[in-house]
Amino acid sequence: MDLIAEKLEQAARLVASSDLDVWLTFVRETTEGGDPVLPFLIEGGLTWQSALMVFRSGRKVAVVGNFDADPLVASGHWDEVVPYVQDIKGPLLEVLNREQRRRIGVNVSTDDDKADGLSHGMYLLLAEYLQGKPYELVSAESVVSALRGVKTSTEIDRIETAIEETEAIFDILPSQGLVGHTEREVYDLIQHWIDERGYSYGWDRTGNPIVNSGPDSMIGHGVPSDKIAISPGHIFHIDLGIVVQGYSSDIQRCWYVPKEGEDEAPEDVCRALDAVVGAISAGAAVLKPGIEGWQVDDAARSYLVTQGYEEYMHALGHQVGRMAHDGGTILAPRWERYGRSPYGKVRECEVYTLELGVTVEGRGYLGIEEIVVVTAHGPRWLTDRQTGLPLLD
Amino acid sequence: MDLIAEKLEQAARLVASSDLDVWLTFVRETTEGGDPVLPFLIEGGLTWQSALMVFRSGRKVAVVGNFDADPLVASGHWDEVVPYVQDIKGPLLEVLNREQRRRIGVNVSTDDDKADGLSHGMYLLLAEYLQGKPYELVSAESVVSALRGVKTSTEIDRIETAIEETEAIFDILPSQGLVGHTEREVYDLIQHWIDERGYSYGWDRTGNPIVNSGPDSMIGHGVPSDKIAISPGHIFHIDLGIVVQGYSSDIQRCWYVPKEGEDEAPEDVCRALDAVVGAISAGAAVLKPGIEGWQVDDAARSYLVTQGYEEYMHALGHQVGRMAHDGGTILAPRWERYGRSPYGKVRECEVYTLELGVTVEGRGYLGIEEIVVVTAHGPRWLTDRQTGLPLLD
Repeated sequence: MDLIAEKLEQAARLVASSDLDVWLTFVRETTEGGDPVLPFLIEGGLTWQSALMVFRSGRKVAVVGNFDADPLVASGHWDEVVPYVQDIKGPLLEVLNREQRRRIGVNVSTDDDKADGLSHGMYLLLAEYLQGKPYELVSAESVVSALRGVKTSTEIDRIETAIEETEAIFDILPSQGLVGHTEREVYDLIQHWIDERGYSYGWDRTGNPIVNSGPDSMIGHGVPSDKIAISPGHIFHIDLGIVVQGYSSDIQRCWYVPKEGEDEAPEDVCRALDAVVGAISAGAAVLKPGIEGWQVDDAARSYLVTQGYEEYMHALGHQVGRMAHDGGTILAPRWERYGRSPYGKVRECEVYTLELGVTVEGRGYLGIEEIVVVTAHGPRWLTDRQTGLPLLD
Repeated sequence: MDLIAEKLEQAARLVASSDLDVWLTFVRETTEGGDPVLPFLIEGGLTWQSALMVFRSGRKVAVVGNFDADPLVASGHWDEVVPYVQDIKGPLLEVLNREQRRRIGVNVSTDDDKADGLSHGMYLLLAEYLQGKPYELVSAESVVSALRGVKTSTEIDRIETAIEETEAIFDILPSQGLVGHTEREVYDLIQHWIDERGYSYGWDRTGNPIVNSGPDSMIGHGVPSDKIAISPGHIFHIDLGIVVQGYSSDIQRCWYVPKEGEDEAPEDVCRALDAVVGAISAGAAVLKPGIEGWQVDDAARSYLVTQGYEEYMHALGHQVGRMAHDGGTILAPRWERYGRSPYGKVRECEVYTLELGVTVEGRGYLGIEEIVVVTAHGPRWLTDRQTGLPLLD
């Protein structure tokens, strides 16, 4: 069974156990700005207004423009493909009427951007088509968020492949004679490797990888500097996410650039490393099915503060899947900007990052990011954890 | 001036001449499913809820999460960048209140998918933030559609480069000994060239290029067949759009595969070619600033029918820009599926395809697609027009 067939079966199970009568994905011109759920439903794109429906019964029906019908039929994924030439309204209502469906779940969420693929204009159109009919448009967030979050074994395999390829890049970095080169040169080198291998990027390539060297670097989602050279005394830090076979990695690693005579990182850097590694372990220790996202963040955050460091100004972890930031429950503090997503309950087979860092005065940013999959018993590490600080020279 | 600076200046002029007090683009997690207008405003992506505002005064203000602020400041494109850590609502209202703005234009459109980048969930959030305040949310379609549609000279140059590269691919195709190979093999070969050159795809790569050979091929947005071999007596047809430096081409070309003893295409094929070329010319003849999209389609469609062919089941033309299908006014019949977009008035410096085809019984699909830019006096052809039918052998 291919991945789309796997995910469509999962979707049918999710709809059957939800309070929806049908889950309806409503899109048009999907090449740019399409609904992020679409790669789970179809390969390629759709041109005109298209309705992809999964009914409670498990039946899957697509209503699409005439030129888009053949590939959907050929995919074998849909029980029925209804093509139209001039107007979707008639055929769409005919399919809905046929099964007397009342609660229609659409891709709307104020909290999970990956379950919010319906544009406001398309919402208005759909509401107009259904006006005066006995249908109710409700959020399909519970279905979409679980469909994306709970990985099949095929998906976990693919994420592991992306992680292996990312780790392979980290492995060859130290032998490249980087000291003296700028952040920008390292960024160009890594992008060259990614492009050469035919991989794509887990987030916009403009900011991927993030490369930070030393205390003057722009932390966060900044652009690498063509002024800052990797120099003795620096902490050197990379954040990289690559997409292989449609699934992403997202890993941070760091190194210390020794000054003459140093054969290990100085004490303040080692202490920071231990605090960061310990905080990640503290989060991992409580991560299991049923816990709410914010509780995992809180365990790591509290640990870090007890070690005498400032708390990090972001979330401990996000889900990883088709993209590095894959929506759904977040392991985040209960800040307004995260909406309801920190209150989501962690589920088995969800994949999360565990990531945080501290700034070491005069040295730079020491950040680490690992990836785990949630099992019934707790996290299984998909990354080869960083617990020491290798030298870069 | 870089391209984003150019487009932001254009946006400021458009806002000043619209009935909006401010144009507000409201996004989050833009890596997948972001607003299609975003590449005109920023390089790279944004993570948390972000508001990018262009005021009537020309002032440009961005309110973004703390880690996203540095690159926006570094870009030099924004008069003010307001970072926040926990919640966008306070700083966003503060910026809006400061200038007593009433009519806020947001990216909502039932007709133009490229001006409809605000998700329904984000619309609900924004409406909630503004509740009880003296603001009105209205559609910014007129601004967004003109910003995307009316190209700067830099943008036209880039489209011309993408066209040249596409035509270069068409030029080398006939020397590749394609006869006897399958549609799928041609598709793989062209994708190999595109990937090798580091270009990307004007629409989803699954269906790009479209390759059709002979009467049994799947016309439309179908997938190339690994069963159908290019064979004598076939019309061989390609539809290809590649993206170079962020701008796309979209061109259809066709060839005739001669049978033994033939040194030109048979009469029925030549007649079809003349009808298609003539219909494109008929459309081009009326394309000028001020005409409505459907009138241009109608000129081509009527011509084709007078030549004894069935009308095509799509639009004569769409705009081309960052993507092959670039939104805004369409040169389309007044069918419901095109909404209001055929009623748009053509503007100077918009770039359109002119495309149509006919099926020749027993031979295959004869389709041609050209690209023009609209000048004050009519179309300027950006493609090297196809008017004859070269042989592929």
